[in-house]
Amino acid sequence: MTTGKITLLSAGPGDLDLLTIKAAKALALADIVLLDDLANPGIVSLAPRARVIRVGKRGGCKSTPQAFIERLMQRYALKGLHVVRVKGGEALLFGRAGEELAALRRAGIPVDIVNGISSGFAAAASLGVSLTHREHCQGVTFITAHKQDHGEPDWSALAATGTTLVIYMGMTRIERLCTSLMSALPACTPAAVVQWAGTQAERRWLGTLDRLAIDATDAGLGSPAVILIGPAIGEAMQWVAQPAPIHQINQEPFDAQRAA
Amino acid sequence: MTTGKITLLSAGPGDLDLLTIKAAKALALADIVLLDDLANPGIVSLAPRARVIRVGKRGGCKSTPQAFIERLMQRYALKGLHVVRVKGGEALLFGRAGEELAALRRAGIPVDIVNGISSGFAAAASLGVSLTHREHCQGVTFITAHKQDHGEPDWSALAATGTTLVIYMGMTRIERLCTSLMSALPACTPAAVVQWAGTQAERRWLGTLDRLAIDATDAGLGSPAVILIGPAIGEAMQWVAQPAPIHQINQEPFDAQRAA
Repeated sequence: MTTGKITLLSAGPGDLDLLTIKAAKALALADIVLLDDLANPGIVSLAPRARVIRVGKRGGCKSTPQAFIERLMQRYALKGLHVVRVKGGEALLFGRAGEELAALRRAGIPVDIVNGISSGFAAAASLGVSLTHREHCQGVTFITAHKQDHGEPDWSALAATGTTLVIYMGMTRIERLCTSLMSALPACTPAAVVQWAGTQAERRWLGTLDRLAIDATDAGLGSPAVILIGPAIGEAMQWVAQPAPIHQINQEPFDAQRAA
Repeated sequence: MTTGKITLLSAGPGDLDLLTIKAAKALALADIVLLDDLANPGIVSLAPRARVIRVGKRGGCKSTPQAFIERLMQRYALKGLHVVRVKGGEALLFGRAGEELAALRRAGIPVDIVNGISSGFAAAASLGVSLTHREHCQGVTFITAHKQDHGEPDWSALAATGTTLVIYMGMTRIERLCTSLMSALPACTPAAVVQWAGTQAERRWLGTLDRLAIDATDAGLGSPAVILIGPAIGEAMQWVAQPAPIHQINQEPFDAQRAA
């Protein structure tokens, strides 16, 4: 029996032009595409040979169970097929790539990983700022507000690093998150929210930490969005009033409400 | 006078297939390419119309002064040309995108930003690990060991976050860095070094924090490399002994000593 292979493919933030060339090549050769709901479904146009299976949340339904997704990948790979598992953003940042990789390794199935653009970087491009402007910081922390045990991240430890904070999955708990950060950072710390970063439906808010929870919510911003906090983000304030010549989107519209 | 425009373009870690489609499109239309030495010089094959100007370090020479690069970009853009400024890795992570963006905004020149793959993500792909495996951590911090004021990062604050640490420009000060981290993290904390991540010349070391400085140096690893530290990196230990079916490189060789 010939064993196929699995490509864990990062679909980026939504704009299909932000896929890598390597991703496009893998899709062109795919027999099976397992499509995460956080990826732009238009991506299937790049996989003309493939049978497409949608996994992940649809509407109000529950997620496809992780174990089922893992079994599905293995079943097709063991038939000798090239399975492309499409994950929104960068596969190695959040999502459950770690668990999927471990399961596939245990099953002895070769896995190729194709990197991509995470929505935090697309958000920075939209704001026109470096995440690590060296006059302001010397690094950046990507963090999810959603802990596996439903606890809170240690916001004061994160603030103490002086790095720019890029928070994923934080909009549903933005008030608590801001209260915690306000006890560790100045109220005037620059903050931004970019919703649907890197898609045609992109929206953003820019202000300061003390206004973040109220104003971003009042502006109608919600999930999926990234929250960016730190002095480096403040650089955007110098040109955000001008028509911002930033981050062109050259793609067909898609259901951006589902793009991370 | 027609004002041209500038595209700040992320060249990724070296493999030209890891460029985004958007980057390839921008290069195809470029009149002028300003090429960072940390980018794969083979990238110019994608810019057939462009005049190519190399900037950055060459051999033992000093860097092209930042102010000169900024003036050069502005001069060509003000002639109505499309200038593509190619930066290694992801333009918005380290490098000096912040300063370049500020200078261009002051000059009123439109800037488009094209995201790319940073070498830290390529290193994770090489190791076959998620940077944020949720059984181990809830985030990742990208940090440069090289502070603007030549001081040290606050390693204990960084360790206290519990995030995976991905350290850029750390190989020349790896001993001091490890000594500082050893006072904040267990000696058995998984650690890895990936040199020339995402290029054909890629080399890597995987072990624990207490052996990092000595063993990675003994193995001949040096700049440019990324250092990865944290329990999530330890996942690689489960399959690193096997022939690792990871991260194919499909490109011509290039002077990988210069790729970040």
